[in-house]
Amino acid sequence: MKPLITTIAATGLLVVATPALAQDAAKFATVADTAYIFNTLLFLIGGFLVMWMAAGFAMLEAGLVRSKNVSMQCLKNIALYSIAGLMFWIMGYNLMYDGVDGGYFGSWFSPKAIDAVGGNDLDTGYSGASDWFFQMVFCATTASIVSGTLAERIKLWPFLIFTAILTGILYPITGSWEWGTGWLDQLGFSDFAGSTLVHSVGGWAALAGALILGARHGKYSKEGNVQPMPGSSIPLATLGTFILWLGWFGFNGASQLAMGTIGDVTDISRIFVNTNMAAAAGVVVVIALMQIIYGKIDVTMTLNGALAGLVSITAEPLAPSILQSVFIGGIGGVIVVFAVPMLDRFQIDDVVGAIPVHLIAGIWGTLIVPLSNGDASWGIQLLGIVAIGAFTFGLSAVVWLVLKSTMGIRASEEEEMLGMDRAEIGVEAYPEFTAAGTRF
Amino acid sequence: MKPLITTIAATGLLVVATPALAQDAAKFATVADTAYIFNTLLFLIGGFLVMWMAAGFAMLEAGLVRSKNVSMQCLKNIALYSIAGLMFWIMGYNLMYDGVDGGYFGSWFSPKAIDAVGGNDLDTGYSGASDWFFQMVFCATTASIVSGTLAERIKLWPFLIFTAILTGILYPITGSWEWGTGWLDQLGFSDFAGSTLVHSVGGWAALAGALILGARHGKYSKEGNVQPMPGSSIPLATLGTFILWLGWFGFNGASQLAMGTIGDVTDISRIFVNTNMAAAAGVVVVIALMQIIYGKIDVTMTLNGALAGLVSITAEPLAPSILQSVFIGGIGGVIVVFAVPMLDRFQIDDVVGAIPVHLIAGIWGTLIVPLSNGDASWGIQLLGIVAIGAFTFGLSAVVWLVLKSTMGIRASEEEEMLGMDRAEIGVEAYPEFTAAGTRF
Amino acid sequence: MKPLITTIAATGLLVVATPALAQDAAKFATVADTAYIFNTLLFLIGGFLVMWMAAGFAMLEAGLVRSKNVSMQCLKNIALYSIAGLMFWIMGYNLMYDGVDGGYFGSWFSPKAIDAVGGNDLDTGYSGASDWFFQMVFCATTASIVSGTLAERIKLWPFLIFTAILTGILYPITGSWEWGTGWLDQLGFSDFAGSTLVHSVGGWAALAGALILGARHGKYSKEGNVQPMPGSSIPLATLGTFILWLGWFGFNGASQLAMGTIGDVTDISRIFVNTNMAAAAGVVVVIALMQIIYGKIDVTMTLNGALAGLVSITAEPLAPSILQSVFIGGIGGVIVVFAVPMLDRFQIDDVVGAIPVHLIAGIWGTLIVPLSNGDASWGIQLLGIVAIGAFTFGLSAVVWLVLKSTMGIRASEEEEMLGMDRAEIGVEAYPEFTAAGTRF
Repeated sequence: MKPLITTIAATGLLVVATPALAQDAAKFATVADTAYIFNTLLFLIGGFLVMWMAAGFAMLEAGLVRSKNVSMQCLKNIALYSIAGLMFWIMGYNLMYDGVDGGYFGSWFSPKAIDAVGGNDLDTGYSGASDWFFQMVFCATTASIVSGTLAERIKLWPFLIFTAILTGILYPITGSWEWGTGWLDQLGFSDFAGSTLVHSVGGWAALAGALILGARHGKYSKEGNVQPMPGSSIPLATLGTFILWLGWFGFNGASQLAMGTIGDVTDISRIFVNTNMAAAAGVVVVIALMQIIYGKIDVTMTLNGALAGLVSITAEPLAPSILQSVFIGGIGGVIVVFAVPMLDRFQIDDVVGAIPVHLIAGIWGTLIVPLSNGDASWGIQLLGIVAIGAFTFGLSAVVWLVLKSTMGIRASEEEEMLGMDRAEIGVEAYPEFTAAGTRF
Repeated sequence: MKPLITTIAATGLLVVATPALAQDAAKFATVADTAYIFNTLLFLIGGFLVMWMAAGFAMLEAGLVRSKNVSMQCLKNIALYSIAGLMFWIMGYNLMYDGVDGGYFGSWFSPKAIDAVGGNDLDTGYSGASDWFFQMVFCATTASIVSGTLAERIKLWPFLIFTAILTGILYPITGSWEWGTGWLDQLGFSDFAGSTLVHSVGGWAALAGALILGARHGKYSKEGNVQPMPGSSIPLATLGTFILWLGWFGFNGASQLAMGTIGDVTDISRIFVNTNMAAAAGVVVVIALMQIIYGKIDVTMTLNGALAGLVSITAEPLAPSILQSVFIGGIGGVIVVFAVPMLDRFQIDDVVGAIPVHLIAGIWGTLIVPLSNGDASWGIQLLGIVAIGAFTFGLSAVVWLVLKSTMGIRASEEEEMLGMDRAEIGVEAYPEFTAAGTRF
Repeated sequence: MKPLITTIAATGLLVVATPALAQDAAKFATVADTAYIFNTLLFLIGGFLVMWMAAGFAMLEAGLVRSKNVSMQCLKNIALYSIAGLMFWIMGYNLMYDGVDGGYFGSWFSPKAIDAVGGNDLDTGYSGASDWFFQMVFCATTASIVSGTLAERIKLWPFLIFTAILTGILYPITGSWEWGTGWLDQLGFSDFAGSTLVHSVGGWAALAGALILGARHGKYSKEGNVQPMPGSSIPLATLGTFILWLGWFGFNGASQLAMGTIGDVTDISRIFVNTNMAAAAGVVVVIALMQIIYGKIDVTMTLNGALAGLVSITAEPLAPSILQSVFIGGIGGVIVVFAVPMLDRFQIDDVVGAIPVHLIAGIWGTLIVPLSNGDASWGIQLLGIVAIGAFTFGLSAVVWLVLKSTMGIRASEEEEMLGMDRAEIGVEAYPEFTAAGTRF
């Protein structure tokens, strides 16, 4: 570490060479390299946690449908995760991110290549492949939301085709408006991890499908009575909720998009805490309200309380204090308690409660951002919600109607009674436990 | 990297400026920054792994209770995790960590704020929020332990109130004695990741509850015969055990509390290996003993063998050699084989075996620390076990008795026969699989 | 950062001391230290993800066997993971890695010690314990593969003994040929994360066992008709598949073996994407083929399609483009669709489809490496497949035959009808849901 004076020129010009220093310099890690590794690692960890949410949705839905439709939900969930990945590769990623620049979508049909180090990775400060992976699992999450609402009566193939369109076109376009630096981003719309871009988009697509598909046979009588159709396995639904809660640390935490500085990793830590407390508040609020209103505590409502708390905090998990997070998540719980029966009053048949949890709590979470984030404005938040909602609901409805009028989207009444597992899958979920179709 | 001689003063004083070097310096990552990021990342990864243990307890208990009480266990587990988070925020964290200084507890009612970078984060070398998250999930684990023992006959609300007191007051106070640098820490008590502070504390609280609550109806006949009440789903219990095993790498590994140096990350690696081998030894010992003693290998005992191995190594997962870890965990397995029937002999009804696994193996693990850790003393270890046990058992008993004499803690015999799910939750766990209450 | 001139010697020799620089140097993180931490962290994260695959196999198998054998599969899976860890410690690790040097195996019976920092850890650039942990969970995975194929009729103890031999001797020996720098490695054989070394080895051992053990009673009639014996829980099988998919990011990603440079972490990111896309392609191909061939989409085949895609990409998850990965994984799906019925035609009774998924797709994945990796040769790949296959199949057969002729490996027909749970475990998996043995 000692500079060596190698030459003293007669002219009085002193040349000081520092071979030791130069040599040492290569021994030290640069900020750029270290940050690149941390940032990329964040995307990878966040990515596998969000990928795991696909299993969470699968278990939640498998638990909340009747046993005669469980194999179908399992198949749909692994299929939609696979299709989302392929479609996001074929077109979604570029549609969402490539050259949006204040506009309405990016480039069509230029599948993202995954290069070795180089290209613009070194400029962005993270591996492009890690970012791709992280964004892809978000896209898949959106499709997962639709699956539960439409369960027990939709046919497999129209669902898979809708999934391909949602993940390849609809989600990427509205995503480009904000995360692709499109027009909403320019206006100052704020949606940190996707209360609107992911959860409400999934919810709008599900709502359009539910309206066009209609309710399950026997769910609502002509007199307006609601027939409970209890889920087949509460522990699987509980497991699914815990998986989603776990995955949400990746969903919100890694949406910080960087971990290479003290500031970033500290922000991620705050996001973990706020995310957790919003979910906890959702749970406790539902329990309290259920006790007061019904005198019994429906565990499925409680699970949805956790999820609604998570969705609510997703638009802004960084700025709030813990107290604000508890408030934001707690209102998510209130939404569940009142919106689930309200949907039944409108005879909108949402098998797993995805519309209250993802759509309505997603709207709430997006609207309340300005409470804690001074850079957001109430008007722009509302504009974003309305614009994305109108686009997604409208185009989803068009797609559902086209599918309905061509291949049909609904199983026959006979198939519905028999259960989708025997009608379309040929594999019963629990062949030894139930005499399928006999009890419900 | 070459220093430039910019001025040669006539006085013979040479001023050498090194603009290039100064510029370069900002390019290099400092040890402090890099360590801060690694330390915080350790808390976040460890934290989400321990959070995941909440799902593990939920599945373990859902699998080991009868189907008529499964929804209740699911609800209790998601509720207790939520309540623990809220109580630890409202008071627990500060009671445990704020200004204990050799004393008996910290400050009351000063909810931990989660600041942006700044405050004392830079001094401690990690984000305060990440530490808070990691400590909070430990607190929740303690409450999870109680839930299983008291299953199938405790009412929901007294359990939730006890959970709030345990996680907001009891656990933080004894925690402050050691991890909050209180009096036991000053004496040299050693409990690396909480064989006593977490597992035995949960076990003592559960034991007090079990004694005051009494056994399930029909579990023990007047002649002392034990009626088996087999769990409803062995695969869910197995899943729960694997989840706990996975989570334990975070539980023990991240209790190193730092990952920013070669030494720390190497220690974490050793902890991973020792933790794994202790659990493996617990499994193999139980299998061997069951074969020898009973000729059949009860899978639930084997699962508890893994857990007892994990609890046993938790007080000191770093210092032992692998051979010592195998020994320590293996004795955990022995404890399960002999303590489970022993509790039945005393007619202490522990539905999931939490008392042998968490309390007795926790005592064993804490006692054996001096075998591998020369800084620990047998006497002080015993003192810590007794002090924490007496405090937790005593105050837990007081709380249970107060709850019993006010709101009552036990469901009626009729409700117990019907199952807690129908009595208090209104949602059956498996409505299509069982005619609840008919077989058992 | 300013060098200070402390002395100007009269001789014209200038001594420039740089105390500030020297002091600052200690403030900067070295590449070596930072890389060591990242590398070790990679092994730890990868390790816990692969450990989690043990739970995935347990759930997959618990879901695919009939309810009367579920407890047995749960026990076998937690037991084999434990035994694998102990055997790999007692002898496997050193047999595989210690001084192979182009040969056929390493050292016998020198259990790997886990040292504190020091030894050769600093030279290798990662903690030896973290590497040990990562390699151990690979060994356990191999044993998991065998478990499913032989389900529902093998006795517990011969299976456990075989597991000990497989994980302590067979797997380490062939592993040493490649990953221990043995003779195949010297020839240029290429198997990045173990399509052959892990998956095919497990598959060969399973195949040998299946042939010697014979099919389940009633599975194949004398006329060659195949009796379906449907699994007891499709959601558990689905959960297991998702767990395995998640774990595979650790399996393939952390097989990069280093994360301390931009190049390494970028490669890991590419591996994540390729791994995911191969699995997605496996799923979609199976769905399409099942629709075309059968008109119904068997969900268990679809799950196996995901797994076959994953196995296929495991030999080379880094070099392929996404398109190549989709192709490689998609052929994995084709293999499932055609190999599962083919095995039935040969009356080889593989309860969970492990032979198509792990053995045949493993061969495919290994063979196709040269497509994307120019350093690999078709001939050497084939040589490695044949050599490892012959060794593993041959020695496994010897072990199975010895076990058969000594203690016997097969449960009696009566025990098989009763179910292994009642015969050997004494604990029914679902005591309230089924009248065991009555329906099948």
